[in-house]
Amino acid sequence: MDRASDFERIFYPRSLAVVGASGEPGRPGYQFMRTLLEFGYQGKLYPVNPEAPEEILGFRTYSSVRDVPEPVDFAFITVPASAVPGVISDCAAKGVAGVEIFTSGFREVGEDGRKLEEEVVRVAKGRLRIIGPNCFGVYCPRGGLTLLPGARLPREGGDVAFISQSGGLALYFAWAASGCGLRFSKVVSYGNACDLNESDFLEYLGGDDETKVIAAYIEGVKEGSRFFQLARSLLGKKPVIVWKGGLSQAGGRAVSSHTGSLAGEKGVWQAFSRQTGAILVDDFEELVDAVLFFRQCQRDVGRRVAVVGGGGAVGVAAGDICERVGLTVPMAPAGVQEQLRRLLPPVGTSIRNPFDIGAPVLPAQLFRKVLEVLLSWEGIDAVIIDRIYLYGLGGLNGVPEKSCEERLEVVLDLQRKTSRQFVVVTEELTTAIDKIEAEVERRSAQQKLFNAGIAFAPSLTRAATSLARVCWYREKVRLSPATVRQNPLTGYESQTIM
Amino acid sequence: MDRASDFERIFYPRSLAVVGASGEPGRPGYQFMRTLLEFGYQGKLYPVNPEAPEEILGFRTYSSVRDVPEPVDFAFITVPASAVPGVISDCAAKGVAGVEIFTSGFREVGEDGRKLEEEVVRVAKGRLRIIGPNCFGVYCPRGGLTLLPGARLPREGGDVAFISQSGGLALYFAWAASGCGLRFSKVVSYGNACDLNESDFLEYLGGDDETKVIAAYIEGVKEGSRFFQLARSLLGKKPVIVWKGGLSQAGGRAVSSHTGSLAGEKGVWQAFSRQTGAILVDDFEELVDAVLFFRQCQRDVGRRVAVVGGGGAVGVAAGDICERVGLTVPMAPAGVQEQLRRLLPPVGTSIRNPFDIGAPVLPAQLFRKVLEVLLSWEGIDAVIIDRIYLYGLGGLNGVPEKSCEERLEVVLDLQRKTSRQFVVVTEELTTAIDKIEAEVERRSAQQKLFNAGIAFAPSLTRAATSLARVCWYREKVRLSPATVRQNPLTGYESQTIM
Repeated sequence: MDRASDFERIFYPRSLAVVGASGEPGRPGYQFMRTLLEFGYQGKLYPVNPEAPEEILGFRTYSSVRDVPEPVDFAFITVPASAVPGVISDCAAKGVAGVEIFTSGFREVGEDGRKLEEEVVRVAKGRLRIIGPNCFGVYCPRGGLTLLPGARLPREGGDVAFISQSGGLALYFAWAASGCGLRFSKVVSYGNACDLNESDFLEYLGGDDETKVIAAYIEGVKEGSRFFQLARSLLGKKPVIVWKGGLSQAGGRAVSSHTGSLAGEKGVWQAFSRQTGAILVDDFEELVDAVLFFRQCQRDVGRRVAVVGGGGAVGVAAGDICERVGLTVPMAPAGVQEQLRRLLPPVGTSIRNPFDIGAPVLPAQLFRKVLEVLLSWEGIDAVIIDRIYLYGLGGLNGVPEKSCEERLEVVLDLQRKTSRQFVVVTEELTTAIDKIEAEVERRSAQQKLFNAGIAFAPSLTRAATSLARVCWYREKVRLSPATVRQNPLTGYESQTIM
Repeated sequence: MDRASDFERIFYPRSLAVVGASGEPGRPGYQFMRTLLEFGYQGKLYPVNPEAPEEILGFRTYSSVRDVPEPVDFAFITVPASAVPGVISDCAAKGVAGVEIFTSGFREVGEDGRKLEEEVVRVAKGRLRIIGPNCFGVYCPRGGLTLLPGARLPREGGDVAFISQSGGLALYFAWAASGCGLRFSKVVSYGNACDLNESDFLEYLGGDDETKVIAAYIEGVKEGSRFFQLARSLLGKKPVIVWKGGLSQAGGRAVSSHTGSLAGEKGVWQAFSRQTGAILVDDFEELVDAVLFFRQCQRDVGRRVAVVGGGGAVGVAAGDICERVGLTVPMAPAGVQEQLRRLLPPVGTSIRNPFDIGAPVLPAQLFRKVLEVLLSWEGIDAVIIDRIYLYGLGGLNGVPEKSCEERLEVVLDLQRKTSRQFVVVTEELTTAIDKIEAEVERRSAQQKLFNAGIAFAPSLTRAATSLARVCWYREKVRLSPATVRQNPLTGYESQTIM
């Protein structure tokens, strides 16, 4: 069996069977077909169910996968748990490359489920690959596939991969990240990971040309040593961002009833991160932010930042927050201060870094000149812009306001011309229901920032935290050979790699 | 001079002079008048400027405050810094109770400015009170006052007070907090605090019947001992939430060029918090969240939470995050588990806490029954709801969806009937520009949650952090007499108070 080509047949299936297909709109076997069609799957589709009507959504139904007259690449399985082994056997006999098992009720529910899951694995072994059980399957836009509830996710492909033991999280992440402008190579909800696990996906995605950034939500790791080696081997090639769930007592308890995994300990995962360069994040928002920042910050970023704000408190907060997360805000040298002194009024501003340009509504031409001075300063690696109106003023005040757009254009234009990384804090401003126009303007600005390669986050803390993570990773890449000592996921000494 | 009545004349002025009024739309002296009129100030308005036209915006202009034929309660001053002492002298002679000085260029710009500021204080001493200089002034909706750029802020009053050394921050906070539904008694941007300082405002607000929650953005404290005593005396009466700016090297540098304050040390402020029960927050978002949570959580909340999510990873994250911030997620007792077992399917759910109800789209009637079981459990103090669709599904999927509203109604209804506190995570879902309808639904849901007394925040981390702060405060109130040892803001032994 050729593993690479199995993955190709799974992610880009020319033909797909839905085992447990149904004519009833409430059933997953119906919903999955409708979702696929709405999403725009272009391959052949074979509903399979001996008890279903002759046709479902215009497709002829078969009693068994074995009866399908043509080859089947991939199958979606939603039959009762006890019937899954038989279906797997049929799929294997038919030459199906891989299946995703939506059905739950396996290892995560206890001893009987564990035995049933083992049987499934036994039947499949060496014959086909399994994603799941207890999962939402695969969202691979270029292959025409989407998650069970993902009909409306973006259809164009991208360069971010996300693997998740949670189906819900895969969906929430795809919504949130695509909202920022990110697009996906593959999103895989892999549930209990009875066959294909995080290491298999990591290995595949590591070699997948479509994937530039890999993110993972993990509850438990099946092959600790292999996962460690793989993560380590990707250092400097592709960032691997991991949100590890279940590192508390209550979280660990939830893990066992969710995917039946063993959650592990926090210190172990911190050591894993230190030794592999995999980036650990602590919550959903940090996950989305980290992926966005690693995707956007292609330049050589470092910890020395210039912060530009419209108002004194912005600079104060920026100084505090940047230092807290490990960035540095160096004092501007005399030359930079002198140039800014010529541009800005002497009162109500600050020219030392953090820079306070006095008002969040500085005229665009002046704003450009200020930024150009900062970009000429060799002592910084990135420029953070916070609380300068690049959007939203019109929406807040109820009157059209062109100056925001002009300032935004300045930032977009300068990012094209400089090797420094711009980071913009895109605050929500207000969630007042009658100010939704300000939010429309914000989203439009975010899209433009995304397209210009600028990193952004909705708060200064989130922006600074994510930028610091990118810096940490770059430092790891530079220092990497010396840091590998022991694989914390196995406890064994591992050979020095790289 | 009667201090209380001075404050009354400042916050609810029957007559107001704008010294430095201008007929030119770009000038602050014009903008302030326009803003006040647009906001709906109902008192008398006297533009003052010997060089301005005879009328500004329909109001007769005077050469000096002394020439105004009727009493003047309050004055807005926007003349050049060097002219401020003269204006103060005029205002004092006229019997003005207080002034807000918009003009900057005082202590924050160095030695000359410091001397000028001292002169201003000398002229005013014992004759009138000063807010500022270098500030945006007062937003007091019931008094018809707003910040210089605050024409569109809500006109109805509320019970939150915010004092801020930063004018920009006062505005940003008013926008963000009012977006959540909060309304204000007084928001004061007080800049350099040359006369009225954080202690004066804290004392006034502590006795102000309109104010239930007090928040402050502070760069430096003028009267440490007094501030400590005041904060301490409010413990158990009104929560005092403090965002202290400038606790890093770069932040401290920014403080000195912003309001010319000495920022102080982090440890000192932590001790201040421990000993007074004042709640410290670390960034803008935490400030908004804390105010909202302290305003909403009127019930007797404690650290034991039940978490209800639609999907297994939600529970895992909730367990991890709640424990990280100091909440506890106790295991549900057998009786609770048994009742839930009768309601929920055996697979794809978890009934131990965190609770996974299987899908974020559970029918409303079933959702109600689940919540009723949780509310019957004596062992918890609050219920956190996360990732159950209470809004947004219609906007995400582009088709109307009534079930969200039905589930939301369940939560609103149960909050009315229970003594437990509900906390709802109101995620943004996506910032995709073509999914703005989901955001409209979210904002509408937030307003309903606010009106029902429910606390909410846009992420689980933020919600849990804020709830933990409320719990911390309640514990402080219970334990308070024993904790006062030393005033960290002065270094002196202080007597035990309360």
